Amino acid sequence: MYTVYGDLLSGNCYKIKLLLEFLQIPHQWQHVDILAGECQTVEFKQKNANGKIPLLALDNGEYLAESNAILNYLADGTDYLPTDKLQRARVLQWQFFEQYSHEPYIAVARYINKYLGLPKEREAEYHAKQTGGHKALAVMEQQLGKTPFLIEDKPTIADISLYAYTHVAHEGGFDLSDYPAINDWLKRFSQIPHYTKMSGDNG
Amino acid sequence: MYTVYGDLLSGNCYKIKLLLEFLQIPHQWQHVDILAGECQTVEFKQKNANGKIPLLALDNGEYLAESNAILNYLADGTDYLPTDKLQRARVLQWQFFEQYSHEPYIAVARYINKYLGLPKEREAEYHAKQTGGHKALAVMEQQLGKTPFLIEDKPTIADISLYAYTHVAHEGGFDLSDYPAINDWLKRFSQIPHYTKMSGDNG
Ligand SMILES: N[C@@H](CCC(=O)N[C@@H](CS)C(=O)NCC(=O)O)C(=O)O
Ligand SMILES: N[C@@H](CCC(=O)N[C@@H](CS)C(=O)NCC(=O)O)C(=O)O
Repeated sequence: MYTVYGDLLSGNCYKIKLLLEFLQIPHQWQHVDILAGECQTVEFKQKNANGKIPLLALDNGEYLAESNAILNYLADGTDYLPTDKLQRARVLQWQFFEQYSHEPYIAVARYINKYLGLPKEREAEYHAKQTGGHKALAVMEQQLGKTPFLIEDKPTIADISLYAYTHVAHEGGFDLSDYPAINDWLKRFSQIPHYTKMSGDNG
Repeated sequence: MYTVYGDLLSGNCYKIKLLLEFLQIPHQWQHVDILAGECQTVEFKQKNANGKIPLLALDNGEYLAESNAILNYLADGTDYLPTDKLQRARVLQWQFFEQYSHEPYIAVARYINKYLGLPKEREAEYHAKQTGGHKALAVMEQQLGKTPFLIEDKPTIADISLYAYTHVAHEGGFDLSDYPAINDWLKRFSQIPHYTKMSGDNG
């Protein structure tokens, strides 16, 4: 059985929870408290040298890091990852977009605001994140105005990756009311069977 | 025949050039001048809404963005991308590590130093990038002390992704002399048949 090291208030960890629920894969959830520095202990870094969650423990004793790599591993052979070569590459395109052009703005703004309480010394950074975040939302809006999910008409792990922080973007100061296609997609996504909310309680 | 939109002084674009040369895949290289803002024109954004290079034009008229997604697409079915499910996920783990924990420090420090000439107003940011960059290098050093390439003993697209900015890390102020395993790997990598240097001339 898989063990996932994670914190369910982190969007990167929530991605893994969502997929495990959608696929009804039995697993153990091992809570790791980021704010208490539990990712930076010697013991944890023996599991993941990069000191980050989520982390997936496999049955063979190995560990797999990086939320989007874990999603690709778990979704392989299921409806959440297409088999067509170009569609698989498109899934990755969205996931790299998420990690490079979306998460560093939207998740970081949310972190500064929600978890750190928007301290004075990070206000400038917080405001600077807004532009990049809106750029990323505009790119998503354009695609979701054309197709119900990021890859045509069925949800894939690309949607999971982008749902994680988009659905809580308001906690980072992003007003989503100007993005009607994103709002429709958020609703559509939350209707997938076995959908589970992001919450510290559902570990 | 593929067309690649890119600038060969950008490590993200150089990744694609390296793989195309290793695999001897015929292609056209379409130079895009980032500093002149050619990624942000209306015309370019019709090809890639996110306004970034590299961008791969496919024969069917579609475009594929994100350097690491393009690598996965082009390497599928070749020696540069394993078929084993866990090894494929490990390749992705390294590539997401590259985009999240390596490139934003090492490539950005290099950009500020080499292309912008380390202007006063970005000095603090430049210095702040050093810590994160060294953390990423330490993670690589640990793996490369155990295996000749990132995934065991043969080069994959994970090595290509991390070679791109690691081999020019000194241009971002990173002294690599404390990383013997990385240095050996850099040498090993540059001996792969059809290796090509990063240069504005080889487009
Ligand atoms: N690229 C990584 C990012 C993971 C990440 O940044 N995790 C944060 C929590 S959301 C973390 O573990 N931070 C702990 C630390 O840096 O000490 C992924 O997608 O898994
Ligand atoms: N995550 C992207 C990053 C690409 C990227 O940042 N490209 C830069 C050049 S290295 C760019 O196109 N910048 C132009 C701009 O932002 O206007 C990838 O891996 O392809």
